[in-house]
Amino acid sequence: MAAYWVMTFVGNPRITVRLWDGNEFYFADGTPVGLMEFHDRRALLNLALSQSVGFGDGYSNGRIEIHGDILEFLREIARAISSRPNQNYYASKFLSMLRAIRGNTLSRSKNNVHHHYDLGNDFYEMWLDERMVYTCAYYEDANVALAEAQVAKLDHVCRKLELQPGQDVIEAGCGWGALAMHMAEHYGVNVKAYNNSHEQVSLAREKAAARGLTGRVEFVEDDYRTISDKCDVFVSVGMLEHVGLKNFHALGKVIDSCLKPTGRGLIHSIGRSHPKPTDAWISKRIFPGGHIPSLGEMSAVFEPHKFSILDVENLRLHYAKTCAEWLENFDAVSEKVSAMYSEDFVRAWRLYLAGSSTAFESGTLQLYQIVFAPHGSNNVPWTRKFLYSPESAEG
Amino acid sequence: MAAYWVMTFVGNPRITVRLWDGNEFYFADGTPVGLMEFHDRRALLNLALSQSVGFGDGYSNGRIEIHGDILEFLREIARAISSRPNQNYYASKFLSMLRAIRGNTLSRSKNNVHHHYDLGNDFYEMWLDERMVYTCAYYEDANVALAEAQVAKLDHVCRKLELQPGQDVIEAGCGWGALAMHMAEHYGVNVKAYNNSHEQVSLAREKAAARGLTGRVEFVEDDYRTISDKCDVFVSVGMLEHVGLKNFHALGKVIDSCLKPTGRGLIHSIGRSHPKPTDAWISKRIFPGGHIPSLGEMSAVFEPHKFSILDVENLRLHYAKTCAEWLENFDAVSEKVSAMYSEDFVRAWRLYLAGSSTAFESGTLQLYQIVFAPHGSNNVPWTRKFLYSPESAEG
Repeated sequence: MAAYWVMTFVGNPRITVRLWDGNEFYFADGTPVGLMEFHDRRALLNLALSQSVGFGDGYSNGRIEIHGDILEFLREIARAISSRPNQNYYASKFLSMLRAIRGNTLSRSKNNVHHHYDLGNDFYEMWLDERMVYTCAYYEDANVALAEAQVAKLDHVCRKLELQPGQDVIEAGCGWGALAMHMAEHYGVNVKAYNNSHEQVSLAREKAAARGLTGRVEFVEDDYRTISDKCDVFVSVGMLEHVGLKNFHALGKVIDSCLKPTGRGLIHSIGRSHPKPTDAWISKRIFPGGHIPSLGEMSAVFEPHKFSILDVENLRLHYAKTCAEWLENFDAVSEKVSAMYSEDFVRAWRLYLAGSSTAFESGTLQLYQIVFAPHGSNNVPWTRKFLYSPESAEG
Repeated sequence: MAAYWVMTFVGNPRITVRLWDGNEFYFADGTPVGLMEFHDRRALLNLALSQSVGFGDGYSNGRIEIHGDILEFLREIARAISSRPNQNYYASKFLSMLRAIRGNTLSRSKNNVHHHYDLGNDFYEMWLDERMVYTCAYYEDANVALAEAQVAKLDHVCRKLELQPGQDVIEAGCGWGALAMHMAEHYGVNVKAYNNSHEQVSLAREKAAARGLTGRVEFVEDDYRTISDKCDVFVSVGMLEHVGLKNFHALGKVIDSCLKPTGRGLIHSIGRSHPKPTDAWISKRIFPGGHIPSLGEMSAVFEPHKFSILDVENLRLHYAKTCAEWLENFDAVSEKVSAMYSEDFVRAWRLYLAGSSTAFESGTLQLYQIVFAPHGSNNVPWTRKFLYSPESAEG
């Protein structure tokens, strides 16, 4: 029977299943932590055929209902899945490569970015922090608020890069420009920031003008593959996830051709502990064209050009907290979002934000900040103590 | 002509060549930084046939003489080589794999380790620090002395592992036991430390007895592949270089089977910015069976078992300084070493220590400390600030 098969496949989570006829089933041991209701047979069959898309679409269109806290529910699913006997590493690596082979051409990248980021600035403004930073925050301690933690993240990145006044910085994938503007305003650098999203670049330009930064921050509406200037610093926060495995070599080549021999680079990206294809529903509905790489896969960006990796920091628990705060903000405005788009849209985004939070919490997803330098550059810090010394705060 | 060919091949360093007939040649621009003398034709031909072995053996047996500072000489060679047009990345990666295919069986590992580490404890005692730490030191600032920097390294490792009193620690490749004893003495943990070298284990046991640590540190004269106990912490400093690429998977499996789900691990190893075969002379004369991996290659230890990489720190400039200090110590006792072994041996070791120092300085070699945790463990530090806070010093 389909319900039993589905629950067994995900490792028998402590979740009660309620069917359209009111019958309830529970296949696990212990107390249930949630209830999943199927409003019709088709929702259950879709889930059996394709766990990820079947669940994602079923939850979005309301044919599947989660009773109780969605974070608790997803945590329990993550726990059950991870307690299944180990899947084969090489099969997973192979699948990851197969999925990743579909490369992002320039026009396809533009479409993929459009899909997610051109939903409307108004939409993101409603639930992001006031700077509109749509990447993992850095909570210096766990009690800090989201907005403060986003500023701390910007500073953490700037300090890792040891920005010096007057330096030329290239940023690839700049969102609404928060990091670009922060670097120019607080560290005195000149920034050229690239982004494929027309909506984002327009708002970023407005924001920079309002802050009097027009001459020091240039926003370029174009793909990272068109970058050609020389720079002292290359930084990219939250873009690598969208680049696609096949283009890692091209990204490395771009960095290699623009970064000066004594320069510094930083890539901040969602990652995995091992190669694995992107979740099918996320790939279909939320982030088409992306690939979440393992550190080993990321080495395709750095090793062909002999970049020296200086520092890797894993901030996955910070991203779990960031996503949980976004979900809270999102829930507070969900009626407005529903009026702008639809109830299905609201439910899809709830699932995406809650699912991301639990994926970071369970270790399904990681968050890596990677600092690197050109081969042979000795313009590198002696230790990392300066990152944590009060006197080296904000330049 | 052979001299011209040889110098062009290494990128025309600013080195004067003097032949057996007294003739001198200089093929570069600018002022020479050193003079290389060939005492006979065979030395030059050997160098032309095989740069690394030809030079290493020729210098060791005295047929090639370096006039001037050997570090300056090797620095100039490193600079010239790195300024040559880029070698093909994939060819280099392929060669690295080919060389690495020759795996280390248990008995071959024992022989390889014997080759280097059983030279005699007296030998290493003469030029290492008093704790006999034969891995990269950690200089909190550049003016610290070697012995102090080695203790700082031991503490840096212990702090990254967040050792708690009473924990069980397994150390793979423990040298003369400095880290094992430091962990037990200052952090209150129980250590089981593995090492293939009979000479080293014997001295380590003596030292532990003298410090009253016999019950808390157990030295096991065996291969890491025989480790079977469970532990809270797995640590390996300076062993991965000797494991061989083919055995990375086996090492990962050992760690996976012994590390508890909430445990912590650290691997400290020489590495590279990109895959490359080990230098032929080093491989033939100094470290048979080893392979210096890139970070991408190291992922074969971690990714099949989904270990979460928490932190990677690159300390290559610290190793350049460590090797330079070892060379200074070694030079001070070279007459005694020559009497114990031979003048060829002294010259080979001078070249090895000087060459290692310049390789770390030029970026040919890297030094990675990698902290990791089992998949899904949330027993991980929130930030890395505690590593640099005075109050968290030595437990």
